[in-house]
Amino acid sequence: MKVTNLELTPEAMLQMGESAVKAVVDHIINLPSSPRSNLQNSAEIARSFHESSPEVGEDFESLLDFFMKKIIPVSINTPHPAYMGYIPGGGLFPSAIADFLGAATNRFTGAWVAAPAAAKLEANVLEWFAQWMGYPQAARGIMTSGGSLANFSGVVAARKHILGDDISRGILYASDQTHHSVMKAALLAGIPEINIRLLNVDQNFRAIPDKFETVIKEDLKEGMKPFFLVGNAGTTNTGVVDPLPELADVAMKYGLWYHIDAAYGGFFNLCSKGKKILKGLERSDSIVLDPHKGLFLPYGSGSLLVRDGKLLRQAHLLTADYLQDHDTPEGEYNASEYSPELSRSYRGLRVWLPLKLFGVKAFRENLDEKLHLTKWMYQRFLEEPGFECMTVPNLSVIAFRYHPQKGNVDTFNRQLLENIVNSQKLFLSSTLLNGEFVIRVCILSFRTHQREVEEAFEIIRNAAKKFESEGGKT
Amino acid sequence: MKVTNLELTPEAMLQMGESAVKAVVDHIINLPSSPRSNLQNSAEIARSFHESSPEVGEDFESLLDFFMKKIIPVSINTPHPAYMGYIPGGGLFPSAIADFLGAATNRFTGAWVAAPAAAKLEANVLEWFAQWMGYPQAARGIMTSGGSLANFSGVVAARKHILGDDISRGILYASDQTHHSVMKAALLAGIPEINIRLLNVDQNFRAIPDKFETVIKEDLKEGMKPFFLVGNAGTTNTGVVDPLPELADVAMKYGLWYHIDAAYGGFFNLCSKGKKILKGLERSDSIVLDPHKGLFLPYGSGSLLVRDGKLLRQAHLLTADYLQDHDTPEGEYNASEYSPELSRSYRGLRVWLPLKLFGVKAFRENLDEKLHLTKWMYQRFLEEPGFECMTVPNLSVIAFRYHPQKGNVDTFNRQLLENIVNSQKLFLSSTLLNGEFVIRVCILSFRTHQREVEEAFEIIRNAAKKFESEGGKT
Repeated sequence: MKVTNLELTPEAMLQMGESAVKAVVDHIINLPSSPRSNLQNSAEIARSFHESSPEVGEDFESLLDFFMKKIIPVSINTPHPAYMGYIPGGGLFPSAIADFLGAATNRFTGAWVAAPAAAKLEANVLEWFAQWMGYPQAARGIMTSGGSLANFSGVVAARKHILGDDISRGILYASDQTHHSVMKAALLAGIPEINIRLLNVDQNFRAIPDKFETVIKEDLKEGMKPFFLVGNAGTTNTGVVDPLPELADVAMKYGLWYHIDAAYGGFFNLCSKGKKILKGLERSDSIVLDPHKGLFLPYGSGSLLVRDGKLLRQAHLLTADYLQDHDTPEGEYNASEYSPELSRSYRGLRVWLPLKLFGVKAFRENLDEKLHLTKWMYQRFLEEPGFECMTVPNLSVIAFRYHPQKGNVDTFNRQLLENIVNSQKLFLSSTLLNGEFVIRVCILSFRTHQREVEEAFEIIRNAAKKFESEGGKT
Repeated sequence: MKVTNLELTPEAMLQMGESAVKAVVDHIINLPSSPRSNLQNSAEIARSFHESSPEVGEDFESLLDFFMKKIIPVSINTPHPAYMGYIPGGGLFPSAIADFLGAATNRFTGAWVAAPAAAKLEANVLEWFAQWMGYPQAARGIMTSGGSLANFSGVVAARKHILGDDISRGILYASDQTHHSVMKAALLAGIPEINIRLLNVDQNFRAIPDKFETVIKEDLKEGMKPFFLVGNAGTTNTGVVDPLPELADVAMKYGLWYHIDAAYGGFFNLCSKGKKILKGLERSDSIVLDPHKGLFLPYGSGSLLVRDGKLLRQAHLLTADYLQDHDTPEGEYNASEYSPELSRSYRGLRVWLPLKLFGVKAFRENLDEKLHLTKWMYQRFLEEPGFECMTVPNLSVIAFRYHPQKGNVDTFNRQLLENIVNSQKLFLSSTLLNGEFVIRVCILSFRTHQREVEEAFEIIRNAAKKFESEGGKT
């Protein structure tokens, strides 16, 4: 089907829609048997797709085919049930439908006045998030593209509230296990790099509140302005949760804004096991939550909650003459007053639709399952000679390495990971802990169940034994 | 269809997809006969959709129906052919399909290594943009959610390059017709509000380069650090284009970063008429372009181009241990190194697909048509007694007002606009120019053609005459 008129006929739209849906469903059905990653010669292949600006159009079916068969497969298979690298999400199908609905109906959801009912659905979702985290009614939030910009707006809200315009002496405190997007957020917000204090952690990779207090006191003595204290509710490296209540005490004592990066771990607060681990979350001034992690959404959904919503608004409210018709009634939610964005896609819908469709119960049970699976796998690692887990998993990350009978541990594990990934049966990623190379398993996709976790453990164990028996050579 | 398992059956997915496509196509077919806006009692209606966190799920068809029939209609009908308020885009259907494809296949496009071929499509689109704007090969860019964050990253790149960490004396210069998101971007980036210089414009609402030079000199004398000069390629108020080459001269002479906000107007550079008007665009250090405006995409697509791409990278590059496997080969594009974001949706696809499907020619012709339609309407305004256009339209905005025989001009036009909008036959918005109320027409939707523009003019003229004959009373 070749088209040149930007206004498509109904038949053309129906046909495109049908083809796209079929292609996607085929793709999802075939996920289990597809390679877990496919990056061989990927640079060369990608380079071959360089092309110049297309003066004339091409047939839709060919473009769809090209995208599904040539573009998508050259990748890490992030929606795969055996994807346990970085932080999985999975990508719920109904969210993809929601993206389609939102874009095709194309209402303006950046300002309340332009689509008040659509704004309400987004406000509902943010209110649910706030309630799940134990925040008060005065809390407000924003849907962002991901955790990075959510962290950014958290820093900006704190900076405005505590430092005002005089930001050069503002100091930020975080453990050295904090996600780099928090530091990046601070730099983007104009905080000088030398004002970022990354503090050592304890042997379980958790922040040490006393250390925070000591450094804050030193900075105060130097005439600096401590303003931002970061707690982690699930670090990326090991998934551990900082001592949140104790960090809250320090932040409160010295009048700092207490920000919790719960991008990965926050939604575990939905289940009772998680709630115990995340105690203290509710004492923060702001929380980052990534629905594209803990709610299994497709990439593109982060969020920020601020306990005292008016402080978020105060840092982002700026208006203009051409927006003079924009009045927001008391109690209603005008996203652009709380966000760095004005026009943007309708992000609320991709969260709202799956929550309404499946109910929160389905998410709670799925998250609970992930905690259980992680415990199960951790137990296997403990029982298996040669394996070392770097810490007891708090949520759903296991950081481990294998100790071969001889040879360098770091080199062995680097190559072990490479062997596992190259087998295309399982995707894992790595990190450094105390400068040492470790492999990470993160169990978070809604498609990952007992069977996949058992298989994953067998793959890891067999790969380690085999590699060791071969003398650790690649 | 009620579902509780997050992993849907193929049948369920196919059915959801089919229902969603049908609902959307129905919606688009019926656009012409639907109200141009529907905001009566909208606050009350929106409030009635407040609901608590849903523990159990609901049937998909009911949710779809609820969204299409209850949520979407309570809005300004932004995709309507007679939508000429603010800055229209329209929302191309294939982009909505692309959003669906991107989200459902859920690859990680924030880092090159995770989806190199997908990254290449996005890099191609950005390269096309750069070429269309006359930028050199060294240019790099990012796809953003909209103009606001594109402006933000422009400020950040300039701040890092010119000011380093010492930002308190950095000064930004822009005409008072500049979009407020530029000022908001500066504030978010930590530039103190008192360092923002908004300068008066000439009688055509265009920046006055000499004035910029005078103020820069004064600031230099005071020991301040002028660093950022903004040119507008299509202001929101009147659509006029600043004297871009002369502003380039000033920026160059004093070593300022020259940033052009072409969010609205930049894509007119694709057609020869537009290219003449936008001369000088190519001399900037950075350009903001909104595909959801000039390429008719659904909301959610802005972009930033930086002439010397490495300066954008330098301001955004920050890495971490858990990303240690991330090597980007020379010449390939790793979005997160240039952007404040890491995880985010696959924004490139929604631009790539319509460009490849229709070809650039279709966009060029459509943009050319918009310039022609604007000229046509402007001519009608000139010929019609009582109407005043505030300036000759440069691109596709006409700012006008009606001078009634008696009564207050401002009050008359405020009510005139209200009458037009309430008629639900046409949607326009307003602004203030020199403190006076004016009505704006912006012709930019791909669904708007000669017929819609003729109808719009008749609606405006008849509304003005009728309202005047009634003595200007509501």
